[in-house]
Amino acid sequence: MSEILDIAAALSRLLKAENVLLICHKNPDGDTIGSAAALYWALKGLGKTVAVLCADPIPSRYDYMDIGLYTGQFTPGYTVAVDVAGIQLFGDSIAEYTRRIDMCIDHHPSNSGYADCMLLDGDAAATAEIIYELLTAIGTEITPTIADCLYTGLSTDTGCFKFANTTARTHEIAAKLITAGASLVKLNNILFESKSRSRLAIERLALESLEYSFGGRCATVYLTKEQIAETGADGTDLEGITSLPRMIEGVEVGITIRQQPTGSYKVSVRTVTGVDASAICAHLGGGGHKQAAGCELLGSLDNAKAALLTEVEKALCKES
Amino acid sequence: MSEILDIAAALSRLLKAENVLLICHKNPDGDTIGSAAALYWALKGLGKTVAVLCADPIPSRYDYMDIGLYTGQFTPGYTVAVDVAGIQLFGDSIAEYTRRIDMCIDHHPSNSGYADCMLLDGDAAATAEIIYELLTAIGTEITPTIADCLYTGLSTDTGCFKFANTTARTHEIAAKLITAGASLVKLNNILFESKSRSRLAIERLALESLEYSFGGRCATVYLTKEQIAETGADGTDLEGITSLPRMIEGVEVGITIRQQPTGSYKVSVRTVTGVDASAICAHLGGGGHKQAAGCELLGSLDNAKAALLTEVEKALCKES
Ligand SMILES: [Mn+2]
Ligand SMILES: [Mn+2]
Repeated sequence: MSEILDIAAALSRLLKAENVLLICHKNPDGDTIGSAAALYWALKGLGKTVAVLCADPIPSRYDYMDIGLYTGQFTPGYTVAVDVAGIQLFGDSIAEYTRRIDMCIDHHPSNSGYADCMLLDGDAAATAEIIYELLTAIGTEITPTIADCLYTGLSTDTGCFKFANTTARTHEIAAKLITAGASLVKLNNILFESKSRSRLAIERLALESLEYSFGGRCATVYLTKEQIAETGADGTDLEGITSLPRMIEGVEVGITIRQQPTGSYKVSVRTVTGVDASAICAHLGGGGHKQAAGCELLGSLDNAKAALLTEVEKALCKES
Repeated sequence: MSEILDIAAALSRLLKAENVLLICHKNPDGDTIGSAAALYWALKGLGKTVAVLCADPIPSRYDYMDIGLYTGQFTPGYTVAVDVAGIQLFGDSIAEYTRRIDMCIDHHPSNSGYADCMLLDGDAAATAEIIYELLTAIGTEITPTIADCLYTGLSTDTGCFKFANTTARTHEIAAKLITAGASLVKLNNILFESKSRSRLAIERLALESLEYSFGGRCATVYLTKEQIAETGADGTDLEGITSLPRMIEGVEVGITIRQQPTGSYKVSVRTVTGVDASAICAHLGGGGHKQAAGCELLGSLDNAKAALLTEVEKALCKES
């Protein structure tokens, strides 16, 4: 297991480190990229050689962070994983750099402790919160660019301050970043006011397939493998859809059924407080959390739907 | 014109006031209701007789504020308009109480100055920000209920901290309200994670009608009067739709055309920075702001679309 560090200890190791390689998780999100980028700019400001490595390309909407990517320009002397809960999240294509990780900075309570040492804060809404405190401890000036990077991490991991992980500290840091010059309007537009054409197309199909059951207490959407292929919807687009049926007024259980390329059905269940999504899925061989769970079903669509609705009915009857 | 007050002066008048009637604007939103409710609970805590009046019913999703509504239980001694920019926004049904307004607390720079005295802060993202400062100055304890009321105003007027009016102060106050016990998860669910069935239905129809022009730089959605009537979509549902086409990746001009009961077309134009929405609409007899404008067109749908696209093309060519 990792040696557990506090901010001061992490700081002193980072200040000693040379030729620092910052590593993001695969399918990078705003927090892993924003946190790595903020640390990149801070370490660069201290005169260090530093670069960022990620198994997947950085989506172009994050171009404003102007990250220096690692392309073999130096031999890594110290590796720091940022927002990466386990080694399986690095991605195989960068395996030569992830065999040994010197430090991990993360906010996932589930972090497997793969790194030599770890700065972990499971109460932080985003890794960006931890990086903010680290940079404050170093005394780094929070430049407008660093503020943009940290705001990106903070806001994307909290759904723009909407999700349950948001705390008073999240808002306090956001206030500090805005004062430091974060481009609030530009970033919110890029991060939250924009949808891909494929996302819109898949939303349309989802809405067309919408069915209500149990007097509107359950809503189900269904997407065929052909529809998914046609629209070009990617994993993020499809994940976004799963929250849609539960958002409808009066709906307590929202179900999204996605036909897989193999023909099986990937089912996502989202519930309101009081209805147990994991119980619904557990009876069908799946699992998850109280308000978000999933399972995979085989056979005909009608049978899959019938099995699901039987479990939904039980859960609605048990409602606390 | 109104006498302009600072916090201390407003405070001293409120402390002297008896039988206080707090008045919201018609079609009440989270800010006018949340601000009035917070002031209601604070004044009640000081032992005053106080009630809230609104020309329209308070939507049931705001029930958690537990506002005491005015039903003629006392003769108003002091009237305070909250978040009401002009007298036309009171609503005719409460005209007997709005002929003379003693005080107005507002954040709209356009406030017409109809009240005897006014506490106006045009930089505040929401009237709830001003009420927060007022209550802090009184020394009122911010109870969890008052925190819920103020969080409602703050978050709804900023689209959950997403709109351009959000400032560092907005986040600072949000942090204080969360610390004071605002029910963040419950409120965000009610306010931002829920859509009416009619809103979903109208979104579906909007997506079905989506057309791209100029290589995807312009997106247009169109809703017939029959579709609007069928879905039962109300003003809020329809307003929500107008931001949809502009949100699509690559789209610089988003147009929503709604056929009115009379058959004319109500057009909303939303643009990205650099494209002037008001110029597009001005040439068609309408107007508005740089990024959000509107106009009304008569005649056939094809002619209306053609006229619009001609102006859109000009605006795209002029793009700065
Ligand atoms: Mn994260
Ligand atoms: Mn307001």
